[in-house]
Amino acid sequence: MPGRGGDNGAGPGRGRVDLALLHYPVVNRQGETIGSAVTNLDLHDLARAARTFGVERVYVVTPYVDQQELFREILDHWLTGPGGARNENRREALSLVRICADLDEAVARATGRQGRCPLLLSTCAKEAGPVWPYAQVRRRIRAGESFLLLFGTAWGLAPRVLERADGLLPPIRGAGDYNHLSVRSAAAIVMDRLLGDDREAI
Amino acid sequence: MPGRGGDNGAGPGRGRVDLALLHYPVVNRQGETIGSAVTNLDLHDLARAARTFGVERVYVVTPYVDQQELFREILDHWLTGPGGARNENRREALSLVRICADLDEAVARATGRQGRCPLLLSTCAKEAGPVWPYAQVRRRIRAGESFLLLFGTAWGLAPRVLERADGLLPPIRGAGDYNHLSVRSAAAIVMDRLLGDDREAI
Repeated sequence: MPGRGGDNGAGPGRGRVDLALLHYPVVNRQGETIGSAVTNLDLHDLARAARTFGVERVYVVTPYVDQQELFREILDHWLTGPGGARNENRREALSLVRICADLDEAVARATGRQGRCPLLLSTCAKEAGPVWPYAQVRRRIRAGESFLLLFGTAWGLAPRVLERADGLLPPIRGAGDYNHLSVRSAAAIVMDRLLGDDREAI
Repeated sequence: MPGRGGDNGAGPGRGRVDLALLHYPVVNRQGETIGSAVTNLDLHDLARAARTFGVERVYVVTPYVDQQELFREILDHWLTGPGGARNENRREALSLVRICADLDEAVARATGRQGRCPLLLSTCAKEAGPVWPYAQVRRRIRAGESFLLLFGTAWGLAPRVLERADGLLPPIRGAGDYNHLSVRSAAAIVMDRLLGDDREAI
């Protein structure tokens, strides 16, 4: 059932793209699996970029109930509280965010909303296996395929998430070997690469 | 004197690109000229993206002495203090940052370092005049021309900065009219669009 597009400004025929920001399981500098804490600006920056590029939902994934509560308080401030009343653009962006206990819940929600399971596409700053080039994924989205993009906080997604994904996007490389981008910067660039206008047209 | 490239991973022949993040003069939601406060994560995200994409210097511009002091304390923590000892990648990125009192100082430093005045290229989320398309600027950088990219905090650069610039980059558009990106996201995308690999090659 390709070609349904989405509600968030995506053109007809384009596949639906969702995004999940995982706080567990991710790795620390030593490569050990950990859970990371909420960063308020991650929520804002990812939601604003998602709204800009027509990403349908931003699933914020954490198993920690106190962290889920903190996210909900931040969201309430912007969705129904004084934040949103003061800044309608921010309310609009944060209305795309959903809090999930684990990746399964994010996948189930994405599947339920679009009536089919999206392809899971992970991101990693290191070479972590064969990749699906951006240009290829870009064409598949335009042809109607739907994706759930997975981003990890801390030092990135744990191996078990990378193994579960259907595909892996290439690391973002610039002028050399250094690619220690924040997840906020990396997610913005990935959304632009997959969903932004053709480079020669801008 | 084109074709000097830079020290930060840029290829030979490529023009030098610097970036300035202005905290004054910028505008508020009502379009009034204001000065904005330091955001710690701006510094980190812009420096990390700059290091990734071969931007030579990140000039953080604020006329407020207390804000300059705060920036210096943050930088010291990462350059000579415990932060940098713990995280060499972060130290490397933040070593590109220079604090300036005003745009003139940033331009003078960029000029002094490269022996010629860079072209000033401003960014704006709204249509603010005729633009230089990304593809055109990309080609000019590759041909050896040097640029200083200007980003505004708060609601963006004040008119007097836009008027002073040699050129203006197009607003970043995604799926529709919404383009309320954070300056962190916008700067990451602009660096990737101007300095990242060709889209068909990634």
